[in-house]
Amino acid sequence: MSEKIGIAIEADPGPGILYQLTGVIARHGGNITSVDIVEERQTYFEIDIAEEPAALIGELSALPIVHRVWQVQTFQAVFGKRVIIMGGGAQVGQVAIGAISEADRHNIRGEHISVDTIPLVGEQPLAAAVRACARLPRVKALVMAGSLMGGDIERAVREVRAQGLLVVSLNMAGSVPAAADLVVSDPVQAGVMTVMAVAETAKFDIARLKQRTF
Amino acid sequence: MSEKIGIAIEADPGPGILYQLTGVIARHGGNITSVDIVEERQTYFEIDIAEEPAALIGELSALPIVHRVWQVQTFQAVFGKRVIIMGGGAQVGQVAIGAISEADRHNIRGEHISVDTIPLVGEQPLAAAVRACARLPRVKALVMAGSLMGGDIERAVREVRAQGLLVVSLNMAGSVPAAADLVVSDPVQAGVMTVMAVAETAKFDIARLKQRTF
Repeated sequence: MSEKIGIAIEADPGPGILYQLTGVIARHGGNITSVDIVEERQTYFEIDIAEEPAALIGELSALPIVHRVWQVQTFQAVFGKRVIIMGGGAQVGQVAIGAISEADRHNIRGEHISVDTIPLVGEQPLAAAVRACARLPRVKALVMAGSLMGGDIERAVREVRAQGLLVVSLNMAGSVPAAADLVVSDPVQAGVMTVMAVAETAKFDIARLKQRTF
Repeated sequence: MSEKIGIAIEADPGPGILYQLTGVIARHGGNITSVDIVEERQTYFEIDIAEEPAALIGELSALPIVHRVWQVQTFQAVFGKRVIIMGGGAQVGQVAIGAISEADRHNIRGEHISVDTIPLVGEQPLAAAVRACARLPRVKALVMAGSLMGGDIERAVREVRAQGLLVVSLNMAGSVPAAADLVVSDPVQAGVMTVMAVAETAKFDIARLKQRTF
């Protein structure tokens, strides 16, 4: 049986550090499921490992480049699933109200859902942000919250849906609503429905509502 | 002159993958400033590199475990600084309204500020989330948004402040306000002030307001 552990490491900065750290982890048969470089000197790993972590921690601590190694809680346990809302400040704020209130209700019952937002303007920045979401860990759904979105944003929405992300759109001008999984007119309702769709604790089957407009 | 590049890699899953990838990057003198494992098969690096990236990309593509390598925009360019709001759904939602509207105003003028939230209840989960924020990339400030927070949450707030995070607290019961950089009674104002404090485009000197209550 393998166990997931969180390990934080303080080490010298510079090229090759991650190579040395991951070498030790590989020798102990650890499968790295998450890694973050917090700042130049601190790296944080989540590792699936079959053995007791003491030997791995000991060998990491013994590397000349390493100053300190300590075990911490895993991010999955703290932050869980992520919903990302992007677009104009006015609409993003209202969608956030709905999503945050609904996430609170599920988190109280044992879920771990966090709600992230990015207030942003312009076709190219928004398309880049949509594509970047597919490269962020733990993201389950996007809400497109604006008045007019189309062109390359529409293409980006179709790409990330093909990669498995759920995309909800406000009812707005442009071609993005037609490319979304679900279109919702009221921003608070859009936030609530998106969180319900990703929560295990909710009775809400997005597959039965695909491409509907509310 | 070194340049920052973003590289996405699709590879076989399993232990040792990151070790092989970082080995190639180290041989090219690349300094990894950010890394994310998006899912088992996809890893995303941001790398400071002095040479043209073509040779590095070619050698990564040639690894037997690698299926595809492509260059993408860096996260710093897309998401930038992060403000995290945590606590009860009602208060977190109101702080988010202020923070998102204010971030929008600065992002329109060239800033990149995103606002993340985590609706969460209980002393231990909140203390763990505060400590975890110090291990997340690009986080500049936390807002503690609740009615009663103290005990281990207060200790966690003091720890992350010592690590350089700005912590703003709503005016609430418990010992957290006394441990914060700034206490603000109105949640919308708390969100706005926090974003102003981290924005380069704002005239707001947090050092002059430390430990004040508004």
